[in-house]
Amino acid sequence: MSMNSFGHLFRVTTWGESHGHALGCTVDGCPPGVPISEEVIQVWLDKRKPGQNKFTTQRREPDAVRILSGVFEGVTTGTPIQLMIENTDQRSKDYGDIAEKFRPGHADITYWQKYGIRDYRGGGRSSARETAARVAAGGLARAVLAELAPGLEITGYMVQMGPHGIDRARFDWGQIAENPFWTPDAVAADEWAEYLDGLRKSGNSCGAVIEVTARGAPAGLGAPIYAKLDTELGAAMLSINAVKGVEIGEGMAAAALTGDANADEISMGSDGPEYSSNHAGGILGGISTGQDIVVRFAVKPTSSILTPRKTITKSGEASEIITKGRHDPCVGIRAVPVGEAMMACVLLDHLLLHRGQNGGNRGTIG
Amino acid sequence: MSMNSFGHLFRVTTWGESHGHALGCTVDGCPPGVPISEEVIQVWLDKRKPGQNKFTTQRREPDAVRILSGVFEGVTTGTPIQLMIENTDQRSKDYGDIAEKFRPGHADITYWQKYGIRDYRGGGRSSARETAARVAAGGLARAVLAELAPGLEITGYMVQMGPHGIDRARFDWGQIAENPFWTPDAVAADEWAEYLDGLRKSGNSCGAVIEVTARGAPAGLGAPIYAKLDTELGAAMLSINAVKGVEIGEGMAAAALTGDANADEISMGSDGPEYSSNHAGGILGGISTGQDIVVRFAVKPTSSILTPRKTITKSGEASEIITKGRHDPCVGIRAVPVGEAMMACVLLDHLLLHRGQNGGNRGTIG
Amino acid sequence: MSMNSFGHLFRVTTWGESHGHALGCTVDGCPPGVPISEEVIQVWLDKRKPGQNKFTTQRREPDAVRILSGVFEGVTTGTPIQLMIENTDQRSKDYGDIAEKFRPGHADITYWQKYGIRDYRGGGRSSARETAARVAAGGLARAVLAELAPGLEITGYMVQMGPHGIDRARFDWGQIAENPFWTPDAVAADEWAEYLDGLRKSGNSCGAVIEVTARGAPAGLGAPIYAKLDTELGAAMLSINAVKGVEIGEGMAAAALTGDANADEISMGSDGPEYSSNHAGGILGGISTGQDIVVRFAVKPTSSILTPRKTITKSGEASEIITKGRHDPCVGIRAVPVGEAMMACVLLDHLLLHRGQNGGNRGTIG
Amino acid sequence: MSMNSFGHLFRVTTWGESHGHALGCTVDGCPPGVPISEEVIQVWLDKRKPGQNKFTTQRREPDAVRILSGVFEGVTTGTPIQLMIENTDQRSKDYGDIAEKFRPGHADITYWQKYGIRDYRGGGRSSARETAARVAAGGLARAVLAELAPGLEITGYMVQMGPHGIDRARFDWGQIAENPFWTPDAVAADEWAEYLDGLRKSGNSCGAVIEVTARGAPAGLGAPIYAKLDTELGAAMLSINAVKGVEIGEGMAAAALTGDANADEISMGSDGPEYSSNHAGGILGGISTGQDIVVRFAVKPTSSILTPRKTITKSGEASEIITKGRHDPCVGIRAVPVGEAMMACVLLDHLLLHRGQNGGNRGTIG
Repeated sequence: MSMNSFGHLFRVTTWGESHGHALGCTVDGCPPGVPISEEVIQVWLDKRKPGQNKFTTQRREPDAVRILSGVFEGVTTGTPIQLMIENTDQRSKDYGDIAEKFRPGHADITYWQKYGIRDYRGGGRSSARETAARVAAGGLARAVLAELAPGLEITGYMVQMGPHGIDRARFDWGQIAENPFWTPDAVAADEWAEYLDGLRKSGNSCGAVIEVTARGAPAGLGAPIYAKLDTELGAAMLSINAVKGVEIGEGMAAAALTGDANADEISMGSDGPEYSSNHAGGILGGISTGQDIVVRFAVKPTSSILTPRKTITKSGEASEIITKGRHDPCVGIRAVPVGEAMMACVLLDHLLLHRGQNGGNRGTIG
Repeated sequence: MSMNSFGHLFRVTTWGESHGHALGCTVDGCPPGVPISEEVIQVWLDKRKPGQNKFTTQRREPDAVRILSGVFEGVTTGTPIQLMIENTDQRSKDYGDIAEKFRPGHADITYWQKYGIRDYRGGGRSSARETAARVAAGGLARAVLAELAPGLEITGYMVQMGPHGIDRARFDWGQIAENPFWTPDAVAADEWAEYLDGLRKSGNSCGAVIEVTARGAPAGLGAPIYAKLDTELGAAMLSINAVKGVEIGEGMAAAALTGDANADEISMGSDGPEYSSNHAGGILGGISTGQDIVVRFAVKPTSSILTPRKTITKSGEASEIITKGRHDPCVGIRAVPVGEAMMACVLLDHLLLHRGQNGGNRGTIG
Repeated sequence: MSMNSFGHLFRVTTWGESHGHALGCTVDGCPPGVPISEEVIQVWLDKRKPGQNKFTTQRREPDAVRILSGVFEGVTTGTPIQLMIENTDQRSKDYGDIAEKFRPGHADITYWQKYGIRDYRGGGRSSARETAARVAAGGLARAVLAELAPGLEITGYMVQMGPHGIDRARFDWGQIAENPFWTPDAVAADEWAEYLDGLRKSGNSCGAVIEVTARGAPAGLGAPIYAKLDTELGAAMLSINAVKGVEIGEGMAAAALTGDANADEISMGSDGPEYSSNHAGGILGGISTGQDIVVRFAVKPTSSILTPRKTITKSGEASEIITKGRHDPCVGIRAVPVGEAMMACVLLDHLLLHRGQNGGNRGTIG
Repeated sequence: MSMNSFGHLFRVTTWGESHGHALGCTVDGCPPGVPISEEVIQVWLDKRKPGQNKFTTQRREPDAVRILSGVFEGVTTGTPIQLMIENTDQRSKDYGDIAEKFRPGHADITYWQKYGIRDYRGGGRSSARETAARVAAGGLARAVLAELAPGLEITGYMVQMGPHGIDRARFDWGQIAENPFWTPDAVAADEWAEYLDGLRKSGNSCGAVIEVTARGAPAGLGAPIYAKLDTELGAAMLSINAVKGVEIGEGMAAAALTGDANADEISMGSDGPEYSSNHAGGILGGISTGQDIVVRFAVKPTSSILTPRKTITKSGEASEIITKGRHDPCVGIRAVPVGEAMMACVLLDHLLLHRGQNGGNRGTIG
C-alpha cells in the first residue's frame, strides 16, 4: 500500500528528492528474459533532461541512469530492478528565503502542515525531478512492450501552450520530434516559441495540455470499475506534478454531446471491428477497444516565478516572495516524455494482468 | 489487488450486476464505535434511486440497503461491513437483440473481447447500478466523518448539462436540493428541464458535468506522488461509469493561465492560513490546504438510445441497433450522489491514513 | 489493503459474524469462462459442515451457499463473485455471562481492547464460522484449477490429535474419507475416537495437526522473498482460527538436520527432474519444484470448555467462566477442508501470477 | 502488489542480488520527524555482518548502509527512505560449475524453471545477503518504535542448534550478547561451539531454531483474519531465506494440549489484565494481549556444503556437485538479527494501522 508506488503486476516504487544524493525507482514484477541496458533507458531520460534549450530549466544534470539489480547478462531476471539516477548539480546556495516562507501555488505549505518538516532544497520530494524515475521505469516498460505488443506505439505531444491550442488540421506526427515543444503543429511551434520567450524574459510561466496516444494497443486491456483503463491512465497522469485535469477521448467535451453524436459506430473490417469515430478514446466500459488510446492532461503553470507574490512565513508573518533559480517557464514541455512513460507502464501492467486472469483474449468476433 | 476495490485503510470492494440477485459492497477498515443504521445509509441511496422523476430511468427499485455484518447494537465493530441491495425489478424480457449485437459506445464489445462472455442483462457489471453500492459505502463514510471531521460538508451539484453550463453568478447552495438536477442555478434548472425533455422524447441523451465540493476539510490530507489527493479523487471519479474527464480546481483551464495569475496568494487569518483565490482546488503538492476541495467530472451521454446506430453482431455481421428500455436521458443527474459518495470515501480514507502515519497534524504556523 | 482479504490476482475478501444475518466472501479476479454452480461449491461446504457426527459442534447449519454475482449461464464472467451463506441456527439464548466476561484463550479480551466493542454472540467475527466463506472460495478455486492444472490434487488430513500422532507406515490415502477425522491411519482413527469421546464427555477439548498435500502442482509457482510459496501458504494457514504453528516439508524438524541429510538430491527422470527425497516440501527458494507441496499446521484446543477457568469481567472484577454451548471438542477436524481450501486458493493465485509475469514456464531442462 | 515488499503502512520493498552493484530497500510510510542516521542503523547491520567469527561466512563486507532519501537535517520527512548497501566483496571467481548445475536444496533449479534465467553469482536474489536490507529497515523501525512504544523491547536468540536445544531453566537474557550464537543458555553456547566446529571442518552444516520475543508491546495490535498478528509475524519469518517452520507461543506443541491446560487464565493486576501463563504467545484472536509476543522459526541447514551431492546439469545430464566458497555452517546465527528486524517492522506497521483505524485503544477494563 505504498503511497509512492503505482501499477499492479508491473509495480514501480519511486524514491528520492531534488537535492538529495540520488533518486530512483524499484520496478517489481518485470517479465524475465527481456533484453535491457542502461543505454536503452537513457534514450528516454535524455528526452526529459533539463537544459536542452532555453525553454527548460538551466539546471544541468546528465541524469545518467544506473541499473543496480534485476538484470543479468543483459536481460531481466524477473527480480526487482533498481534504477538509480544520481543528483550531480545540487548547486550550493542560500535557501534562507524558501526555507522560511511558503511559495504560493507550491507544495511548501502543505508538506509543512502534513509532516511538520520539509526538505526545502529544490522542492524536495515535490520537485518535478521525481519524474525522472518514472521516465526510467517507462523506458524499461517500453522494452518489455516491444516484445509483448510489437505493434504498439506510444507518442506524447503538446496540444496547447498557455491559451494557445494547436490546429488539428495541421496535425503531423512527423513534426513532433522537430521542435522543442513536441508539438505536431509546426505553425504553433513557431508561435509558442515567441510567446514562451516573452514569458521567460518577464520571469513568468504558463501551463500546457499534453496528449498521449497509444496506437496499436490490443483490445481487452483494462477491467471493470476501479481498474477501468480510464481510471488507471487518469490516475497515472494526475500523479504527475502540477497536473490538474485529465481527459480520455472527448474528455470534458463529452458532456456537451448527445448520445447519437457520441456513439462510435461499429463495422466489421478485415482485421476485426472498426469504428466510425473515436469519441471514447479507445476505451469502452474501462476496457480497450483496439482503437487508439487517447489521454490528455493539463499542467498548471510553474509556481516558481519572478513576480513577487504575497505569502506568510513559518511563524505566520505576512511577507512576499519571488523565486529565483533555474525553473522551467513551461514545465509542460518536459511532461511530454513523462506522460509517455506513464502510458507505457500502465499498458504493460494491464497486459500482464490480462494474461494473468485471462491467459489471452477470449472473445472472438466473426 | 482487487480490481473492484478502492481505498487503502477504508477499503470498499463492490460486487454485483444489474440483473443478478443482488449487489453490494464490503467495507473493510471502518473505525469501530460509530453509530450507523440502515436508515442512515438509505437517505443517500434514496437520493440516487431511479424513477423519482421523468428525467431518470423508470426502473422502479426500492434500492433498500441491508447491513449484513460488522455492526452490533447499532455501532460499527471494526470488522468488515457488508452492505447488500437486492435487485427486485429485473423485468423479464427478450434480450435477444442485445445478446447478439454490441451497442456502440457501450461496454458490450469490450467485455466480450476481454472475457469471451458477458452478462448482457441490463449491462451486467458495466451497468450504472453498480454505483448504488458506492453510495451505500459513501453513506457509511459520511457517518464516520461526522465523528472525525465534524465541520466537513460534501456537496455535489450539476454545473453543465449537454452544452449548457450554469452561470456562476447565480450560484446558490440553497437551490441544489430544490430541482431535479441538483444544480445551484435556478434559471439553468428551468432551461435544462425543457432541453432534457426534448431529448427524452426524441429518444436521445446528453452528457453533463458534475462538481463536488468538500468544505471544511482539514489541511494535510493526501500524500506525495501516487497518493496525491488529486490522483485519488481523480481516480475515484473516473471509476464511475461513463466518466471521461476529471478536473481539480481550475482543471484543464489551468493550462491557459500564467504563473502569476494561477498563484493563490497566502495571508494569515485568525484561524490559520487564508488564500486570495482557489485555483488549486484546495490541493497543493497532492495535499489539502484547508480550502474547499473542488473536483469536477464529465459524464458522457447515455449510449442506450432510440436512434438506430450501426453495429455488428457477435458473428461479425453488419447490423443496426436501437436500445429500447428504461434509460436515463442524462445519467449525470444520478451521478451527483455518486460523486459525493466517492469524495466522502476518499477523504475518510486519507484521514485514517494521515493519523496512521502522522498521528495528527504536525506542522503549526504562527 | 483489506485486513480481511487474501490472494493477489485471485483475491478473496471475507465478511460476516457467527450470529449475524449471513457471512460470505467476494472473490475478485477469477478467470472467466469456468463452469461453476452452487452444487459444485456445496460439496466442499458439506465436508466442513457442523453436526455431522458427535465429534463436531451440534450447531445445525445447512451452510447453503448462494452465488449472488459474477456467474452467468453457468460460467464465471470474470467479474466479482459473491458467495453468501445465511446463518440460520442462531439459537436465541442468554449471552449475559459471555457478554460480561472474557473467556481465557479466546479473542474476547483482545477484541475489546482493540475496538472497545465486540459482537459476543458466538464469538462474532472471531468464530470459526468465518472459515465457511474460505471453503466456498476454495471450492471455486478448485473448479478453476481443474481447468488450468488438471493433474493437481489437493488433500488434507489429520496427522495428530492431541498428543497422538499417526504412524506414517500405515499411511493410506484411501482411508482419509473413511473416518470422521480425515486421517490416513485407520488404527489412529479408532484410538482417536475413544480419546476424543472421553474429552467430549468431560467438557474438555484438544488440539490437532493437519497436513495438506498438493500432488501434481507444476514447477515454477511462487516468487522470491515476500511471496515465497512458503510464506504465502504459511500465512494462509496461520490466518485460520486457532492455528499457532505452520511447517513446510520438514518444518521445525529441519533445524535438527545436517546439510547433507537435508539436501534432496536431483536426478533426471523421463518427465523432468526427480528428487531422492522431499525435505523441502516441494518448495525451494520459495518456488515450487514440481514435487508434492506439503504443509502442516497446528490447531490449538478449543478454548470454549466446561471446566471453570479464572477470568475477569469488563469492569475488572475477578471471576470464573465455563462455556456451555455447542462446541467442537477438536476444532481441528473441521479445519481439514479449510486447509485444503486455503491451499487451493494460494496455488491458483500463483498460477495466475506466474502466467501474468512469465506467460508460462521459461526454463527447460534437458 | 509487489512480491518483494512487506508491511501495509510501514512498507518495505527490497531489491538487489548477492553479487550485483548494491542492494537495499525503500521504506515508505515512515512517520515524519523521527531522528535517524546511518550510524543508528549500522548498529543492527553490524550485528548481522559476516566474517565476525569462525562460525559465519568469511565473506568480508563492511555492509555500510547509506541513506539516499527521505531524511533531512537528521530526521525523517515522511517521504520514501532509500537505504542502500553496496556490495564490495564480489570476489572474482569461476562460476562454471554453479552456472551449469543445480545445487540440491537450493533455489537454483526453481529460479531456472520459473524464469528461464538466473543470476548464479552467489545465489543472486535468493542469497541471504538480501536480509541485510531487512535489517536496515528494522533499524529504522526500531528508531520509530523508540518514540511510539518506548517500553517495547525486541530480542532474538537461538534456542536450538542442529538437534541440540537449550535448557530453559538456564535462560538468562544477559547471556544473549555474550556468545557468538546469541543464545541465552551459556552451557549450550559452549556445547554448540564444539558441535559447529566439527561440522564446519567436515564441510557440513546444520539448521537452527530462533526465538524472537517482544516485551512491552501494547495490547490491541493486529486484526481479524488475514492480518492476524500470528499471520503477519509468521509470514514475516517465513519470508526469510531457509525458514521452513514458524510457531507462535506453544506453536506446533499446542496440538498436544487440552483446552484446560492451554487456557491462559486472566486476573486483574494493578496495571491491567494479567495472565497465569502465555501459551498463546501474546496473541489471542490475532490481536496482542499485552503479554510477551513470542515467535519461533526453524532455519534449515545451509545447502551449500562440501559433501558431494547428486544433481543434474541444465541440459539434464546426471552429475555431482560440491559447493566450495565462503558459507555459513549454520546460517541460523545470522538469522537472529533478521528475525528481530522483521518483528520490529511488523509491530511498527500494526501500531500505525491501529492508530489509523482506531486512533488509540478503545476498550478499557476496570
